[in-house]
Amino acid sequence: MSKIDDLQELLKKLPGIGPRQARRFVYFFLSADENYMSRLSSLINDLRSDKKICSFCRRVHFDSISGELCPTCSDTSRDQSKVLVIEKNSDFENFERSGVWDGRYFLILKNVGLTEDDPSARLQLDRLKTSIESGQTSEVVTALSVNPDGEYTTEYIHKSLTPLVKSHNLSISALARGLSTGSEIEYADSETLKNALENRK
Amino acid sequence: MSKIDDLQELLKKLPGIGPRQARRFVYFFLSADENYMSRLSSLINDLRSDKKICSFCRRVHFDSISGELCPTCSDTSRDQSKVLVIEKNSDFENFERSGVWDGRYFLILKNVGLTEDDPSARLQLDRLKTSIESGQTSEVVTALSVNPDGEYTTEYIHKSLTPLVKSHNLSISALARGLSTGSEIEYADSETLKNALENRK
Amino acid sequence: MSKIDDLQELLKKLPGIGPRQARRFVYFFLSADENYMSRLSSLINDLRSDKKICSFCRRVHFDSISGELCPTCSDTSRDQSKVLVIEKNSDFENFERSGVWDGRYFLILKNVGLTEDDPSARLQLDRLKTSIESGQTSEVVTALSVNPDGEYTTEYIHKSLTPLVKSHNLSISALARGLSTGSEIEYADSETLKNALENRK
Amino acid sequence: MSKIDDLQELLKKLPGIGPRQARRFVYFFLSADENYMSRLSSLINDLRSDKKICSFCRRVHFDSISGELCPTCSDTSRDQSKVLVIEKNSDFENFERSGVWDGRYFLILKNVGLTEDDPSARLQLDRLKTSIESGQTSEVVTALSVNPDGEYTTEYIHKSLTPLVKSHNLSISALARGLSTGSEIEYADSETLKNALENRK
Repeated sequence: MSKIDDLQELLKKLPGIGPRQARRFVYFFLSADENYMSRLSSLINDLRSDKKICSFCRRVHFDSISGELCPTCSDTSRDQSKVLVIEKNSDFENFERSGVWDGRYFLILKNVGLTEDDPSARLQLDRLKTSIESGQTSEVVTALSVNPDGEYTTEYIHKSLTPLVKSHNLSISALARGLSTGSEIEYADSETLKNALENRK
Repeated sequence: MSKIDDLQELLKKLPGIGPRQARRFVYFFLSADENYMSRLSSLINDLRSDKKICSFCRRVHFDSISGELCPTCSDTSRDQSKVLVIEKNSDFENFERSGVWDGRYFLILKNVGLTEDDPSARLQLDRLKTSIESGQTSEVVTALSVNPDGEYTTEYIHKSLTPLVKSHNLSISALARGLSTGSEIEYADSETLKNALENRK
Repeated sequence: MSKIDDLQELLKKLPGIGPRQARRFVYFFLSADENYMSRLSSLINDLRSDKKICSFCRRVHFDSISGELCPTCSDTSRDQSKVLVIEKNSDFENFERSGVWDGRYFLILKNVGLTEDDPSARLQLDRLKTSIESGQTSEVVTALSVNPDGEYTTEYIHKSLTPLVKSHNLSISALARGLSTGSEIEYADSETLKNALENRK
Repeated sequence: MSKIDDLQELLKKLPGIGPRQARRFVYFFLSADENYMSRLSSLINDLRSDKKICSFCRRVHFDSISGELCPTCSDTSRDQSKVLVIEKNSDFENFERSGVWDGRYFLILKNVGLTEDDPSARLQLDRLKTSIESGQTSEVVTALSVNPDGEYTTEYIHKSLTPLVKSHNLSISALARGLSTGSEIEYADSETLKNALENRK
């Protein structure tokens, strides 16, 4: 039954899925109808063949009309001078759903690990710097998750862009730290209480 | 982005997967490499096109040599006079992994719901009866889950086969009720304690 | 604030309670009203001072009228020739709530650990043997949880009592193994499937 | 066995404890040793009889030397002109453990519910106002949990104190909203993203 085992192996790689649930998925497929299976197979194939990567923000999109840029990066109704540095496609989607950002995005795809050697090329900050130097971008905001990798990456990016603050009148900032929705004072960590106190207003 | 939404819809149908995790799967696919995606797509397609249904036990298999019967049903080293009635393919796999049954199987695909109208045709008990009447099968054991549907189905099948007990010297039984591995006396339900006491040995 | 810390330490010993929840209990006490606190303190004190241990089954009870025996052991409407060997007070309560046993009980207080040296005295099987030898008890059923300690203890007790089977016409048995309420065939372990098949009926 | 039932009833009132776990606690008590039980009973009794309420901050403490004020409120090494408005004793403890606040506290004991009629007396804001009017307090920071009641209470307190801002040069603020430790951009809610963007720095 090696095809079943092969499929289970692939499904085990899905986020949060162990061998047992991967097996349940296979069984689900075994009893799924013809139509479901052929649609699933071809959609997965399409995702592979049709996906495009934006030449500025590196976001995955499926727009075939816009050129090298994704629809968001080429949308002139947005404030193209502001860039929000985020980690990944799902962060983009959450910000868009929230409707709180009207500038462009810049994806780094994966936060820098504390032991990563030379992340500069991987983050492709050069493209961001070029955009600043050309006068296209005048404000950069980092919006990374609050965990060791995210905080280290924030620091790394701020340090890399600091020389451009004076020379190109760049504004750099990071999302504020404080109490998030649902925070309970009784259980909040020291770092959060400290930031929430310092930024009180 | 309708292909992404379509794929999320299909993935939401997987057992135990809600909209949020389905979306995470889509994002995983977006950043998966070419090779992973094409293998996944073609394996899912193969599963659809290559699967066979055994003409006796109704189990899904992928054996292309054996004829109408699956390898288990045509295995003459097994005791072909005994049939274990189970619900589904994953139950088959669990019994085979346990190595505790050396007869044939008979899948009903889904337990009978308490409100199901005329389950007889759906369960295809006629094929089982034919096998009993022809002298091929002399013992039937029901092995269904212990929940309302499973218990109702057990009762339904036993009742359907009862006329054959005398006429064809058929032996019918059900898996025993009692303490299963991990049962704690403190938390066991009355039904389990009652059965475990009655069957004490 | 050492009384608060001391109380937290004691509350941490409650089953399933960690330091954090123990602290929450202390805070609950701090804002509880006078009446709650004095009732709690005195009930806990009463539990300590009023509890009695049955001289046969070793169960805790609070009956002040019956003599050395608990109300259950002295209840002549029950079948006093049958004894159910259980581990602890909460097992007793679960059996009584189920209403499936009408004999006496015998508590061993804690199952035998696999590395326990000489459990014989601790289990006080001598009292049980005396009761068998005197003709008072003619059937013993062990009802212990299905885990390594419980299974080892079951074996130990059966072995200890075996000599009395012939000499005193003793009947010994254990609760049956099989599918308990809620068991799903797909997820059942081999041992449970094996027992459920062997005991099929 | 009514004392057991009574005790279970009292233990069910503990935060996060249902009837089943309350029963387990009772069983734990039944088999606990004499010493544990008498210490527990007397500590609970002491908590009741020895507790003091600070006449300024309303915090529970056990200090018998300081007069009407708790040790924190009477500690002259702290900045006594600043007051942190918190909900409860455990919030106090969390701030003290964090070491991020060096002023006084003011407990309101319970956030105002959205349907609460006239919370003014219950919150005892008059005592806080008196302290501001007398020149003792010049800064008030509200530090309440971020949920509907907490946010409503924050608004209520700020509105109540606003008249004193000009007349007594009072500074009022609330803990900042933003990303707390562990926040993931992918899952952050709109409100948190909005606040974190607005307060970016």
